[in-house]
Amino acid sequence: MQLQLGKALKNVQDNGALVQCITNYVTVHDVANTVLACGASPIMADGNLSDVREIAQICTALCVNIGTLDDPTIASMHEASRVHTELGHPIVLDPVGAGASKIRTRVSAELLDGYAITCVRGNISEVKTLMTGSGATQGVDANLADKVTRDNMHETARALQTFAAEKNVVLAVTGEIDLIVDATRAVAITNGSYMQGRITGAGCMLSALTAAFVSANPKAAFEAAVAAVCTMGVAGQRAEKLMVERGHGNATYSNYMIDEIFLMTPERLDEEACHELL
Amino acid sequence: MQLQLGKALKNVQDNGALVQCITNYVTVHDVANTVLACGASPIMADGNLSDVREIAQICTALCVNIGTLDDPTIASMHEASRVHTELGHPIVLDPVGAGASKIRTRVSAELLDGYAITCVRGNISEVKTLMTGSGATQGVDANLADKVTRDNMHETARALQTFAAEKNVVLAVTGEIDLIVDATRAVAITNGSYMQGRITGAGCMLSALTAAFVSANPKAAFEAAVAAVCTMGVAGQRAEKLMVERGHGNATYSNYMIDEIFLMTPERLDEEACHELL
Amino acid sequence: MQLQLGKALKNVQDNGALVQCITNYVTVHDVANTVLACGASPIMADGNLSDVREIAQICTALCVNIGTLDDPTIASMHEASRVHTELGHPIVLDPVGAGASKIRTRVSAELLDGYAITCVRGNISEVKTLMTGSGATQGVDANLADKVTRDNMHETARALQTFAAEKNVVLAVTGEIDLIVDATRAVAITNGSYMQGRITGAGCMLSALTAAFVSANPKAAFEAAVAAVCTMGVAGQRAEKLMVERGHGNATYSNYMIDEIFLMTPERLDEEACHELL
Repeated sequence: MQLQLGKALKNVQDNGALVQCITNYVTVHDVANTVLACGASPIMADGNLSDVREIAQICTALCVNIGTLDDPTIASMHEASRVHTELGHPIVLDPVGAGASKIRTRVSAELLDGYAITCVRGNISEVKTLMTGSGATQGVDANLADKVTRDNMHETARALQTFAAEKNVVLAVTGEIDLIVDATRAVAITNGSYMQGRITGAGCMLSALTAAFVSANPKAAFEAAVAAVCTMGVAGQRAEKLMVERGHGNATYSNYMIDEIFLMTPERLDEEACHELL
Repeated sequence: MQLQLGKALKNVQDNGALVQCITNYVTVHDVANTVLACGASPIMADGNLSDVREIAQICTALCVNIGTLDDPTIASMHEASRVHTELGHPIVLDPVGAGASKIRTRVSAELLDGYAITCVRGNISEVKTLMTGSGATQGVDANLADKVTRDNMHETARALQTFAAEKNVVLAVTGEIDLIVDATRAVAITNGSYMQGRITGAGCMLSALTAAFVSANPKAAFEAAVAAVCTMGVAGQRAEKLMVERGHGNATYSNYMIDEIFLMTPERLDEEACHELL
Repeated sequence: MQLQLGKALKNVQDNGALVQCITNYVTVHDVANTVLACGASPIMADGNLSDVREIAQICTALCVNIGTLDDPTIASMHEASRVHTELGHPIVLDPVGAGASKIRTRVSAELLDGYAITCVRGNISEVKTLMTGSGATQGVDANLADKVTRDNMHETARALQTFAAEKNVVLAVTGEIDLIVDATRAVAITNGSYMQGRITGAGCMLSALTAAFVSANPKAAFEAAVAAVCTMGVAGQRAEKLMVERGHGNATYSNYMIDEIFLMTPERLDEEACHELL
């Protein structure tokens, strides 16, 4: 399998995407700038159901992120997912903190089971929670006991594939080693930086980026998800290098990571992406 | 007509302004830092009607931005507009996405017709929607078909003036060419950068900046709006130059633009502003 | 009294803390990155009461910031404060704008009186409002008439100590001169930068940072609060120096300040902290 990651990026840069984001209020600004960085456009319509429905009509994809849940927003998540499903748009679900509270676990499961979710992007603890119905997510971070390693990655990928087949989704499980799987394929990615754990929103940004990539690469959701994860990973390691050289810290790092998505070229992505078929 | 733009900026820097912002949660942080950058202060009281009313009393201006609408916030927008109107404070309305959904179109029109709005700051599709009652805004971006060009700018300015006279407002319509009009005057501004379309919130920041300028320049709302738009435009092109020289992307660009508002002097504004009377 | 500030920072860096933040939507992103910068982790669960309760169980501290009040969030503030009090976790209260509106004054007082608040972090006008039941806070900024100066700082510290003893809290009152007091001790801190008044959120970031420090230094809340305020102050003045050298403005300054928290070492903190016992 020869993945055309640069081409997937080029499709976003050339054709754009209009991504409706129902996302948390902590990282929403960086999510918007990340979507803009890759050549797509975001719109955050989530507070009024008729607005949610009408905006869905003019968009090409949906990203649902449950980072800060409240009852009106849960209703918007369902309504947006319903309309985008009807329209056949790709939907990316980010189950932030599934496993850390019952409502996060429940809303994630309801969205996954109720609508045509294209891709789930989460950490391993969140995704394991979806697989088993309960989990031990540490707030919004993965539990160390769940960590994907060189030793367990093949086995973990197989288990994820079974779940991906059952739910008919692409799973993008990110951490030190990222695993992207669907029913028949599995890829491990080793791009990225420890600094992505020292900023808020790396996962949220990646989920919205994935929605843009999946939208601009119809019928190639798996490849698009791999390209999005590699784009974020390459951007993250380039940003780390700049941060260290220039003596910055995590706030500037976060901006540099988005900058590097803006500056990413298909050639650079193909050259620097580190992925292997499992 | 000799516009005293530097003097309008100096009035903000010397006298400040306390701007109540009822704005969207996507770009609110940059809106606050933009208001602070020009020498004014922001306060974001919008979640409780008695808080909205009391905070309005100690402020000098209001900026209402409908970027993320929900029912409680709509009530706050009306209440804040009512109180600031009673107090005779300037009000800037940013009709984000008017034309993209019925509720955005309706709330914008209700605010414009219901209160003493001083200035409407929007893109051409949003403002055309207010003029005609419906539109084809592409999410939060202007529709290409509506674009202001060298060829149509005089005609567009005349149409805007008719509407400005009818509603007794200053219209600040921004894009590649900005048009600022009131009943009797029209100015075109060509400052700015393509990068302002690659970040989230350039319009939101400008609307709040305009509220600060209008507040600090009483009885000169037109001149204040021109000065605010030129300040943002000059800052935007200076930030682009720095971004390119230093190899940054859109996230750092966004911060540089606010930095350049902070660093703006009356002399620099007068020197670099590109505006022409129509 | 020899304060071990570097050691207090080291305890955060080595042991972490998981800080539940119920905070305003204006500065929440920088609050999260500030908590991450010092080596702790934030989680912003506030929109659903069962989520609030369950997340509280896995956290080690709470920061309540009333910057943008609405009725559902007020309920979350009470519920989170109740659960963290039961669990014996430290709680930091930031009474943003107490004195500027009745509801801000009332909610601050109810939280202070209803739960086991460990530390109140505010400006002098906000804290005076809590002491007297009313105030003249200028929006979210201190009233000039309340300003702490070399001349009045001893007297002000004594008055604060009486209140700290009555409420059994540490008071961290910040401004040009910061006063940190409990029933028996008082420290004045002169670190910091005028630039912290030209960005949004310096106070909010400090409150959450204080929660992390207090959590990682059990039974030493006073010392932890002094260390947190000095960390922010030293970071603020280092950031100012960089900003001026490099010709930046307030947006980049804000990021540099967080960067400098990320880069802070126990040695640097001990060397550059400027505090004196009163």
